[in-house]
Amino acid sequence: MITLGIDLGGTKTALGLVQGGTVLARARIDTPQTGFDSVVAAIAEAAGALLADHPEFSTVSHAGIGSPGPLDFDSGRILWAPNIYGMEDGPIVAALEELLDLPVELENDANAAGFAEHLYGAARGLSSSVYLTLSTGIGGGLFIGDQVIRGAHGIAGEVGHMTVLPGGPVGGDGHLGTLEAIAAGRAIARDATYGYGLALEAPEVFERARKGERTALSIIDNATEFTALGMANIVKLFDPAAFVLGGGLTNAGDFYLERIRTALDRYLVSYPQPEVRLAELSGDAGIIGAAAVAARAQTEVRP
Amino acid sequence: MITLGIDLGGTKTALGLVQGGTVLARARIDTPQTGFDSVVAAIAEAAGALLADHPEFSTVSHAGIGSPGPLDFDSGRILWAPNIYGMEDGPIVAALEELLDLPVELENDANAAGFAEHLYGAARGLSSSVYLTLSTGIGGGLFIGDQVIRGAHGIAGEVGHMTVLPGGPVGGDGHLGTLEAIAAGRAIARDATYGYGLALEAPEVFERARKGERTALSIIDNATEFTALGMANIVKLFDPAAFVLGGGLTNAGDFYLERIRTALDRYLVSYPQPEVRLAELSGDAGIIGAAAVAARAQTEVRP
Repeated sequence: MITLGIDLGGTKTALGLVQGGTVLARARIDTPQTGFDSVVAAIAEAAGALLADHPEFSTVSHAGIGSPGPLDFDSGRILWAPNIYGMEDGPIVAALEELLDLPVELENDANAAGFAEHLYGAARGLSSSVYLTLSTGIGGGLFIGDQVIRGAHGIAGEVGHMTVLPGGPVGGDGHLGTLEAIAAGRAIARDATYGYGLALEAPEVFERARKGERTALSIIDNATEFTALGMANIVKLFDPAAFVLGGGLTNAGDFYLERIRTALDRYLVSYPQPEVRLAELSGDAGIIGAAAVAARAQTEVRP
Repeated sequence: MITLGIDLGGTKTALGLVQGGTVLARARIDTPQTGFDSVVAAIAEAAGALLADHPEFSTVSHAGIGSPGPLDFDSGRILWAPNIYGMEDGPIVAALEELLDLPVELENDANAAGFAEHLYGAARGLSSSVYLTLSTGIGGGLFIGDQVIRGAHGIAGEVGHMTVLPGGPVGGDGHLGTLEAIAAGRAIARDATYGYGLALEAPEVFERARKGERTALSIIDNATEFTALGMANIVKLFDPAAFVLGGGLTNAGDFYLERIRTALDRYLVSYPQPEVRLAELSGDAGIIGAAAVAARAQTEVRP
């Protein structure tokens, strides 16, 4: 079964013809910033070209799209997309189904990438996993067996929005002390910009921390400490077989990951330790996961 | 299908012949405090008497037991039971299977009670729910469809052990700022005993709070605030259709529940609100849930 996987992003949109965990052919376009209709048209055009270039994969019978959100799964709409102009209330499923002439399945982008890692990447073969994307923001997804846990209102896996420090810094959702507001790339940059009195981005903070600069080290230690605290809470609640960590912050490698592992050990004294693995599918996770969601739409649990 | 449900408790142990959500016959014994063998023998004796008294329900073909823990599901053992003497490493499943001559399924007590509420009580008909038992301690369980989410190491649903206030009071697991260490009955009693300089129990603190005593009110407000914070984090992670609240603290009624609901609304501004319901099955939840776990053992997901 070959499936069209679409990974809608704020800058680029990737498309792929996918079979299981394998991308047979791929394409990549700039995401139009001129409104919903042009985004849908650009995706349909790129999909048409991809299929025309590969007549050998003409048996494609359905498509999946991973999208930034929030999304309304029931109506197949993007409620809004933080980094794409003009997507408000866009009926993405209906519009793509018409243009592609295929049934289309919608999933949020973090769930799609995490599902790919769960089925075919770092967590393949495990009974359950939790995916964390540690990047500008923090998102995630929960997976059991071959199921994406979407939740009753489609918001399960919003790990970045958990409150981990009452009275802490304000998150993007207006709530205080969220994991994202303390530990995401933008929070690291905010704290460094304040601490140094200089406009700094997360990679520069990591660089300074590696050199042993005290302010930068404190910021990274704090971010990893709270990331571990959030993960420990996930263990106590959901007890996954493994965490899979992806996103730009993981590019800092062991300097970042060992801090998280050490703090997690400390938060889980007397509890079983889950495995902590790095994401493996990188750029392809979005299209593989979107395709997998479409392929498994029938068996999915949507509580 | 009639199932024997057993609810092993620190003081009393309840047994029932259960069909779906209905208890056809029940018995109740004091839990021996003289070691594992006497506990197992007392359960078997009570089960035998119950079945002998009700020959009309002689088709019982399997049994389930809800037990305090921690448990080792793979080997069917109770690792230890905080309030029952001499249960360390007790092979409860094998011992009961021999004495009862029935296949026996083991579940932890909070999961069993919550599963009963999920299938037959306050959350019946809902696609997912999270059960919280708010009592001397705080426990819980997660349920999707007809599945108990046990987790990869059998510890899923340990909601009381989530860290909700870094640097907060020490919980029973030795970790700081757990929900249980702030919001459970024993924590309420601890704070009141300190605040008043008098040995007080949770019900007395509620009574004083109702009269408007400032110290008692602060303690209850703080407990309900953090209970709501923990529930909001569960929403962001797992997004259940409903919470079901049980346990002794809920006996304080609306004085307690409205504080939780109000704080939860505040923590979930811009998020969907789950329903918050009171447990319905009270004393029977344990035996109904233990029986249900046994009845559904085949279809259960154990990630």
